[in-house]
Amino acid sequence: MAGEMDQKKVAIVFGGVSPEHDVSILTGMQACFALDQSMYEAIPIYIDTKGTWWAGDGLIEHHQKIVNGCNYKGISQVEVGPGGFYHNGQPYQSIDVCLIALHGGDGENGAIQGLFEVNQLPYTGVRKTGASVAMNKWLTKKLLAALGVNVLSDHLLNKLPGQNHYTIAQLKALKLTFPICVKPCSLGSSVGVGFADDVETLHALLLDLFQMDDAVLIEPAVQSLKEFNVSVRKDICGDIVLSAVESPVADAWLDFDQKYRQGSQSKKQSASGLINLSREFGPKMPKNMLNQLELEAKIAFEAFGGYGAPRIDFLADMSQGKLWLNEVNPTPGSFGHYLWTAKDQKQGFVWLLNHLLAEAQQAGFLNSDQDPVPKLARIFKRNMA
Amino acid sequence: MAGEMDQKKVAIVFGGVSPEHDVSILTGMQACFALDQSMYEAIPIYIDTKGTWWAGDGLIEHHQKIVNGCNYKGISQVEVGPGGFYHNGQPYQSIDVCLIALHGGDGENGAIQGLFEVNQLPYTGVRKTGASVAMNKWLTKKLLAALGVNVLSDHLLNKLPGQNHYTIAQLKALKLTFPICVKPCSLGSSVGVGFADDVETLHALLLDLFQMDDAVLIEPAVQSLKEFNVSVRKDICGDIVLSAVESPVADAWLDFDQKYRQGSQSKKQSASGLINLSREFGPKMPKNMLNQLELEAKIAFEAFGGYGAPRIDFLADMSQGKLWLNEVNPTPGSFGHYLWTAKDQKQGFVWLLNHLLAEAQQAGFLNSDQDPVPKLARIFKRNMA
Repeated sequence: MAGEMDQKKVAIVFGGVSPEHDVSILTGMQACFALDQSMYEAIPIYIDTKGTWWAGDGLIEHHQKIVNGCNYKGISQVEVGPGGFYHNGQPYQSIDVCLIALHGGDGENGAIQGLFEVNQLPYTGVRKTGASVAMNKWLTKKLLAALGVNVLSDHLLNKLPGQNHYTIAQLKALKLTFPICVKPCSLGSSVGVGFADDVETLHALLLDLFQMDDAVLIEPAVQSLKEFNVSVRKDICGDIVLSAVESPVADAWLDFDQKYRQGSQSKKQSASGLINLSREFGPKMPKNMLNQLELEAKIAFEAFGGYGAPRIDFLADMSQGKLWLNEVNPTPGSFGHYLWTAKDQKQGFVWLLNHLLAEAQQAGFLNSDQDPVPKLARIFKRNMA
Repeated sequence: MAGEMDQKKVAIVFGGVSPEHDVSILTGMQACFALDQSMYEAIPIYIDTKGTWWAGDGLIEHHQKIVNGCNYKGISQVEVGPGGFYHNGQPYQSIDVCLIALHGGDGENGAIQGLFEVNQLPYTGVRKTGASVAMNKWLTKKLLAALGVNVLSDHLLNKLPGQNHYTIAQLKALKLTFPICVKPCSLGSSVGVGFADDVETLHALLLDLFQMDDAVLIEPAVQSLKEFNVSVRKDICGDIVLSAVESPVADAWLDFDQKYRQGSQSKKQSASGLINLSREFGPKMPKNMLNQLELEAKIAFEAFGGYGAPRIDFLADMSQGKLWLNEVNPTPGSFGHYLWTAKDQKQGFVWLLNHLLAEAQQAGFLNSDQDPVPKLARIFKRNMA
């Protein structure tokens, strides 16, 4: 990966303090290998589970071992600074653009986006504000509801001061209608998602959930459940484009193990985690449900800043024909490239990286006071005319 | 300010790349001088207008000159790193807690909050997510509207690709009802706020506004206008407490000059900018308007994370008895301490700093995945029973 004069230097940032650390290594390594070398030089940057940043080509050579420590040849500890990375305060590597390959934690919740903005480093994907909001399921739903997007009703349960649980009597007083789905309010992925048919089960689940998060979101459990996911991006003219729609083929909610470990146990480990799940592209759904999905995915994309290629996840009750927007994933596993490829074979992983990098450089150093703001009026006009 | 063994080291961060750079120096210097030295050692940290960070006691000695450059004795360039500040990559100063005295720009929009989170540095005030949302007037209003808070109707106008204006014909097609108030969507303070009675004036205003921001918010101009501001915080038991209510005494909207320059031109320059404005505490207002203000200020405080002591600003049409929440200021000038003092003489500037610092340390390093989340159900229950 020796640099050529006209190549741009791309920091590919992966790992991170997050339950999704391992899958981020997969996404990052994929990107290092797939980067279009006629245009870009890949500079791998690894954040370990303690939050220390490392750089060096040794990261690629040793990528299957780095989780256990970075004492390998060709790997140096670095810090982020103005315009690039520093080693012991001395310039180590100037950077043209950062490719954020981090899932969950600071890398997907706006914190590292803020760090890059402060250091005037262009970065790929959803902007700081959209990422911050997306990582909070309650905020996400309030914002989307205000824009007329259909979301499940909910009840937010906050950890009581000094306590790790609610009593059975307190939970009964909430008069919830069961069955319910419970989830940590601010963790990414499906970490901690559970179901309860009665107050006693909810009580037991909360003991665990309040160790993960200070707030728990309670929603009705959707019956005849089917999940639909779609990615969204802007094309070169500024028009919003949707990927293929996918439906994970599973009877119940994908838990974290299914979503990631299933992938990483397969022999195709270096290829990706998510992609090995069984999934159905262009699943059958009623025409009006598909229309709703397309409109609401566009609204959510714009409301969350109109940048990057977030994956928007929906839940449907197929017997009642109802659809709800569930969450916005700023940095889906493998950047969700398979959703674009399923739509158009020419839109492969390299193509998607090129798109994200071109957009990031066009955004350049987006002054934070000029976060891109929704162009919703246009969408509404176009779709509701 | 020599350190004692049991003192905590407080980085007082001021300046910043922001139109409010100068007033932030005032807030920061006030804090350096007022800090309770029995508990805290002040470490001044100055961010210049180019975004370079500086430390050293020389900052205090030279504070009236530092805007023009930092080549003074006892001032060193520093970078933020894990647990504190570094000079040329070597530890320069470990820090227990950061007091954010920045107004506008990266210091108030969540970016520097993200930088501190990545480096596990506790910080005062509104968390990253709330600050990000607050800095976007459109997002703020959508979120608050979803929670039943009264906000003015609006029209969001985005910069057209490659153009700095809308034509008169395009503006006429919007069929706006005049008079209107226009403002940049993402700039803090009252920077750029203007009024128009007709399409031609709007056209002229937009030429300027689109140089400041990519999106402009258009709202009806409130008649019989009176502004009301109130600060909100949590007490030690977790209960939400309101400051005194103030009303700036002015016939029309305070523009940026009035708000800040009026203060800094006075002889009391080192004391504060904002505080020298003429203002009225506990202004007369109908009882039901006051009730609405108190309830909605609490809802907004919780929705924006329930931390710090943001100032919540309202607009009222006094002839119609209508009140709208206008914006949330994560870091008001002088931390809005005068609003607390007006309520209780014992709650002075030192008391407020102690409160903010105690809360920040209690939050400690808030894992970003556990952003504090609203306890709105409690507020609604308490106020609507």
